Amino acid sequence: MFALTILGNNSAIPAFDRNPTAQLLQTLDDSYLIDCGEGTQMQMIKYKVKHSKINHIFISHLHGDHYFGLIGLLSTMSLLGRTNDLHLYAPERLKDIIKLQLDVADSTLCFPLHFHAITNEGLILDDKKVTVSCFGMQHRIECWGFLFKEKKNPRKINSERANAYEIPASFYDNLHKGEDYINKKGTIIPNSEVTDPATPARSYAYCADTIYDEALADKIKGVGLMYHETTYLKIDHEKATARFHSTTVQAAEIAKKAGVKKLLIGHFSSRYETLDQFHTEASSVFPETELALEGICYNCP
Amino acid sequence: MFALTILGNNSAIPAFDRNPTAQLLQTLDDSYLIDCGEGTQMQMIKYKVKHSKINHIFISHLHGDHYFGLIGLLSTMSLLGRTNDLHLYAPERLKDIIKLQLDVADSTLCFPLHFHAITNEGLILDDKKVTVSCFGMQHRIECWGFLFKEKKNPRKINSERANAYEIPASFYDNLHKGEDYINKKGTIIPNSEVTDPATPARSYAYCADTIYDEALADKIKGVGLMYHETTYLKIDHEKATARFHSTTVQAAEIAKKAGVKKLLIGHFSSRYETLDQFHTEASSVFPETELALEGICYNCP
Repeated sequence: MFALTILGNNSAIPAFDRNPTAQLLQTLDDSYLIDCGEGTQMQMIKYKVKHSKINHIFISHLHGDHYFGLIGLLSTMSLLGRTNDLHLYAPERLKDIIKLQLDVADSTLCFPLHFHAITNEGLILDDKKVTVSCFGMQHRIECWGFLFKEKKNPRKINSERANAYEIPASFYDNLHKGEDYINKKGTIIPNSEVTDPATPARSYAYCADTIYDEALADKIKGVGLMYHETTYLKIDHEKATARFHSTTVQAAEIAKKAGVKKLLIGHFSSRYETLDQFHTEASSVFPETELALEGICYNCP
Repeated sequence: MFALTILGNNSAIPAFDRNPTAQLLQTLDDSYLIDCGEGTQMQMIKYKVKHSKINHIFISHLHGDHYFGLIGLLSTMSLLGRTNDLHLYAPERLKDIIKLQLDVADSTLCFPLHFHAITNEGLILDDKKVTVSCFGMQHRIECWGFLFKEKKNPRKINSERANAYEIPASFYDNLHKGEDYINKKGTIIPNSEVTDPATPARSYAYCADTIYDEALADKIKGVGLMYHETTYLKIDHEKATARFHSTTVQAAEIAKKAGVKKLLIGHFSSRYETLDQFHTEASSVFPETELALEGICYNCP
């Protein structure tokens, strides 16, 4: 499992029952929260997301529609008695905000919160089965995108054939890695005889708020699923540029240049009541486009 | 019109579709927002509350369930182009939080925000038709209650009788105030001959988070509508005391001692799924009790 659930898909002003940005990337073992706009904890209740499985939270930038829900979520986790470590990756000054809000409430969190200030592009998390890197976005303030990659999966052992060659279970880890087996007689059993290819590793790129930036394509080349903001429709491209945001066709151009498998678009402006036109415009440039809709879970291809 | 709409009635953790505290007191001319938990701006959309009519916001204390929605609401007001002054009455350090959150976003509000730090009990607002005073609550941190009073209404002029006595319109303001009229011949026309009594002034007391505190009754003696928190049921009175909160029967005792006309109870703990028992317990001590339910508008008697 490597799938993304949308908890909020709107830009700054909540409207038309659309909430500010929050996304949850789920693997079999872990859940990674990406941005946390106001009301994210209520959206989690609505869509039955367990926050006990979240051990890592990533905040792209310090505009409110991407983090105003964080302090409420942390407070709730604490009130519910969480004890597990929580890791937070975010621009440096978020630490001051959290500290101040806890101070004035004369409160502490009852779990360890590890704050990882993002300062440079590169690897920020090397987890059991996933790595996360960050890359710079071109927005009005410091802003980061996040690239989630499954680690290379192990080759699958065909136990019937492995048994026929009398390969001991103690050698299975080596088989997973692709090694050949040499038996007592010195005969080489090629790895491909007893294993099947691994499931290809999947990847997800979260491109947060950004002006149209061709350099982005190189940073996320060939990912499976890419989310790119589309605050505006094509006709409003001047507004988009003035506000360091992107349009439908700009997002689709990046997806095409980056050669991604699927594009997910969101961060819709509250000036638009309906979203059909977003899909029409983006998919005219990049057919494999989907709207990021709240409560919907998208599999990474 | 002098009526209270509940936008959130739960305590710290949102649960069972109940949101953290926020209330709106509405008169014909103005709307006063009292506390602003996370998601208040979404609740306003849901219950069709126009924030353009809100010029005064009151924050009781700096626990998150009473103010985490404020910065989002201010941001939205600004993005929607508000230009009118907004007055904010709150514990002093809220100013630092707002300043920090605007700073990191490299943002300013596009309307004048007047911050009034609450430091002492007493009058904090003398508006056209309403006065607002604050009074101290006994909570774990600095916490204030708010008393809203309609100004004394003018006596109603019976224009037919006033005409019959040839009282000039220029004297009407004096009639409103209850003065007698002396005509050219020196005859006294008693005020009661040409006016009817004013509508009695109404009042609302918002008693925020508090431990059971008998001294509170004197501060809100005889108000029409009183809101008092009931975080816990009677059986959980030890938890209530330990956490500086109140139970159903404690709130009802205060209402009885204060001789209010009607008691509204809220700030329910997320440990309780249903609310019937809250009503049963409180009204056994003070029959004129109602549950504060979200989206419901309560007239001040």
